[in-house]
Amino acid sequence: MKLSKKYLAHIVFESNDPASKTFDIALLGIIIGSIMVAVLDSVQDLHREYGRLFYVLELSFTFLFTVEYALRVWLTSKTLKYVISFYGIVDLLAILPVYLSFFIANTQLLSVIRALRLLRVIRILKLGRYLAEADFLRESLKASAAKIQIFLFTVLTIVLVMGTLMFVIEGPEHGFTSIPVSMYWAIVTLTTVGFGDITPSTPLGQLMASLIMLLGYAIIAVPTGIVSSEMVRRRKPEHFESLKSCTFCGFERVEEGDSFCRKCGNEVN
Amino acid sequence: MKLSKKYLAHIVFESNDPASKTFDIALLGIIIGSIMVAVLDSVQDLHREYGRLFYVLELSFTFLFTVEYALRVWLTSKTLKYVISFYGIVDLLAILPVYLSFFIANTQLLSVIRALRLLRVIRILKLGRYLAEADFLRESLKASAAKIQIFLFTVLTIVLVMGTLMFVIEGPEHGFTSIPVSMYWAIVTLTTVGFGDITPSTPLGQLMASLIMLLGYAIIAVPTGIVSSEMVRRRKPEHFESLKSCTFCGFERVEEGDSFCRKCGNEVN
Amino acid sequence: MKLSKKYLAHIVFESNDPASKTFDIALLGIIIGSIMVAVLDSVQDLHREYGRLFYVLELSFTFLFTVEYALRVWLTSKTLKYVISFYGIVDLLAILPVYLSFFIANTQLLSVIRALRLLRVIRILKLGRYLAEADFLRESLKASAAKIQIFLFTVLTIVLVMGTLMFVIEGPEHGFTSIPVSMYWAIVTLTTVGFGDITPSTPLGQLMASLIMLLGYAIIAVPTGIVSSEMVRRRKPEHFESLKSCTFCGFERVEEGDSFCRKCGNEVN
Amino acid sequence: MKLSKKYLAHIVFESNDPASKTFDIALLGIIIGSIMVAVLDSVQDLHREYGRLFYVLELSFTFLFTVEYALRVWLTSKTLKYVISFYGIVDLLAILPVYLSFFIANTQLLSVIRALRLLRVIRILKLGRYLAEADFLRESLKASAAKIQIFLFTVLTIVLVMGTLMFVIEGPEHGFTSIPVSMYWAIVTLTTVGFGDITPSTPLGQLMASLIMLLGYAIIAVPTGIVSSEMVRRRKPEHFESLKSCTFCGFERVEEGDSFCRKCGNEVN
Repeated sequence: MKLSKKYLAHIVFESNDPASKTFDIALLGIIIGSIMVAVLDSVQDLHREYGRLFYVLELSFTFLFTVEYALRVWLTSKTLKYVISFYGIVDLLAILPVYLSFFIANTQLLSVIRALRLLRVIRILKLGRYLAEADFLRESLKASAAKIQIFLFTVLTIVLVMGTLMFVIEGPEHGFTSIPVSMYWAIVTLTTVGFGDITPSTPLGQLMASLIMLLGYAIIAVPTGIVSSEMVRRRKPEHFESLKSCTFCGFERVEEGDSFCRKCGNEVN
Repeated sequence: MKLSKKYLAHIVFESNDPASKTFDIALLGIIIGSIMVAVLDSVQDLHREYGRLFYVLELSFTFLFTVEYALRVWLTSKTLKYVISFYGIVDLLAILPVYLSFFIANTQLLSVIRALRLLRVIRILKLGRYLAEADFLRESLKASAAKIQIFLFTVLTIVLVMGTLMFVIEGPEHGFTSIPVSMYWAIVTLTTVGFGDITPSTPLGQLMASLIMLLGYAIIAVPTGIVSSEMVRRRKPEHFESLKSCTFCGFERVEEGDSFCRKCGNEVN
Repeated sequence: MKLSKKYLAHIVFESNDPASKTFDIALLGIIIGSIMVAVLDSVQDLHREYGRLFYVLELSFTFLFTVEYALRVWLTSKTLKYVISFYGIVDLLAILPVYLSFFIANTQLLSVIRALRLLRVIRILKLGRYLAEADFLRESLKASAAKIQIFLFTVLTIVLVMGTLMFVIEGPEHGFTSIPVSMYWAIVTLTTVGFGDITPSTPLGQLMASLIMLLGYAIIAVPTGIVSSEMVRRRKPEHFESLKSCTFCGFERVEEGDSFCRKCGNEVN
Repeated sequence: MKLSKKYLAHIVFESNDPASKTFDIALLGIIIGSIMVAVLDSVQDLHREYGRLFYVLELSFTFLFTVEYALRVWLTSKTLKYVISFYGIVDLLAILPVYLSFFIANTQLLSVIRALRLLRVIRILKLGRYLAEADFLRESLKASAAKIQIFLFTVLTIVLVMGTLMFVIEGPEHGFTSIPVSMYWAIVTLTTVGFGDITPSTPLGQLMASLIMLLGYAIIAVPTGIVSSEMVRRRKPEHFESLKSCTFCGFERVEEGDSFCRKCGNEVN
């Protein structure tokens, strides 16, 4: 029985042999299936016709997730550490709302928490070649964080000043009913989303809007520049990758085509 | 007769002399013409007036494409390999729908397949100086593929969570009729397209929308950074272009200012 | 008393000990609070219910800002220089409108000036690690200024020519009521904002609009390229960070793998 | 009299002394004034009230441009070369439409040609420090031209295929009245403009639209990457600008901090 528990833990936590890979893929399928059911159930026509089926499926998925959560708690060597870890909480949130729904009737809030099940996919995807690339992206963004914060603060200042100005210029009679609504419009405009639910109709308002748009067009370059320059900095140029190490002294900058090591003078192949 | 077949094959498959170039340009004209007819025929006013003319033109184009397809099958030395190749299938798809239309009445589906004729243009354009540049773009995108996949997965997670949240906050009475529709709205907003067919109208919804827009504004920098840094990496800086080749041994990395070749020791000017 | 004044000046102008840091944080809270009040007061429902409370809060904030302004004028060693400096004017603008409002009734204009209080936050944020990053952004943009000016001039030329063309093509009956309005539409389109309040409805107008959009799509790359390349230029590549300093002469560019310092000739480990 | 003509030519064609600079600035003012009049005259309210004034101003500006054109033709040493040059034609187009308007009544077409007067500003702006920067931008775009052409061809293929698909999926009853209109919609969507005048309303149509938007989001990175990488390539990194030339042998890569020239061994300061 002890071996069986160890083997089960291997299947649940690792992913380097057929059995544990099958477990991961099955879990991935169930997660995506449960999200699909939550999404489709929100469509009224489908809910009317397949509502009961969706409910049964939801209960089955929750049962499977509960079994999986119990297994993880039982199998892990550090139970408490798992329960209060990020993944432990995400795993609990994946099953809790359904049990709560037996007592509480607010079904919409449950949908949101159920959507968080997608976060569980990350753990499974972590296993694989994507990890290094994801790290590269995360590191690049982290290194740019201070610059992006300043940028966002600048954007918010523009949004506040422009929102107030447009509120004064256009006024409630043209849809700019308050400063918060005007600020919402300024964000819609500055980010070039442009819903068109609120639009300036006075000549002065259109002139101001044009200024905001050109400003948005110019400063869209800034976050892009920040991230691009950070990524460029973190990557070695292609011609650097051809550098070899000397087999005698370990000098790391023997260039392709060099016959002799620049440091120790031994011949390199 | 044998020579004639060989010469015909040369005209059809190559493009390095006047005759084969004329063939290519004529084919290009027919392809663009056939697409123009399909596009214009979909305009009801034009269809009413010139419908018969468009139909005759379409039949003529199809006849020419059929002759060309027969020629290619007959002239190629590896018939089967051509028929099941990408271009072979595209060539067949260019003529098949019209023949099928004699039996099946669904004309709209045919339009789609006929639009795929544009893919045939690629083969003709492949001949020329654009090939290297296209390769550069394709390679840059391919090398960035893993990063872009992670990025798209992140975007889809945001879309699912934000879509569910907006469905709960705004609800069906403000146009967010279901989670799929809310996700469609989230994509419209996050990509800064902003149709405005669905817009938030509650203060909390507008606040959430503002967050999504600022998020979209910030993360638009990521794919741009990925592709830019990849392209920068793949290009040699301009000052590298001043490198000369040694006139004795052909060593290609003699730097400006070097007196002797690093490889063979001969003096360079 | 003399010491007390010196200590007060330290608290107000510096931020390197608990007392002066507390002052900064309290000021930050008051500034944000006063802006929140101005923003919320513009919402009609809130104004109706909490209007009197907001007014009392506004007067209190203004009183505190007045005390702070008086303190700064009294404590600084160069009174005139402070009063006519950028921050001096911003500080005065933070209190002046409220006093003016006792005589003038235009409350909307006051909102705009009150929104400028956000500028005061900059001084407080200046103290800290963001300064270097903000300088990096400012320098990058400043170095790109000439290029961005040319770019904006090009954009304005396109806007004028395209705006005039669309006015002629679509005309007042389709919403393009005048050249200024058409230019507003051209900016909305070129910046990819796309409100949709004015849209082309003739085939020729839609073709022209498509051209403008593709143009906008292509030239959005230009400001991004300008800022990105400037930022890349200003950052040392990561492999430069492996440079060491010579322990003998302090020469800072000893490359990894170098056996001897290029400057003083001493051996480096 | 001969000296006077030479001096006049200097004023008209050069811009390196007070007199010729004044001429340039006066001309700039008249050009901008004439464009302002054309723009404002298109606003119906202003036309009704100030129409006569605008007409008189327009005639005055045209008279001044005619005098200037006559001066240029008379003063230049190569009359024919000037007349058929780009600037010569632009200068002629600035006055011709007004004279034509005495015979032809189409006033709208004249507006377009009059808007082209803005091109005249370029000549005046050419004189100055912007020239080098403009050249940098032009060269960067020119070097990227082949890549951008391939990119635009790819975009047009996507637009054609997606436009046809959406026409089939949504159909005329949802606003996608023909393939050209669907293609217009596809461009509006792919470029993230998103007017919202035509929007998908079937679930399948919204799914397809989501795909187009994510595609547009991903490929917006391509032209930016092309231009950015080209600009990065054309700029020397900042630390390269500190390189000096050896005063003995002219070796161009003496780095800051080097005590001796790497090539000739002479001491450098």
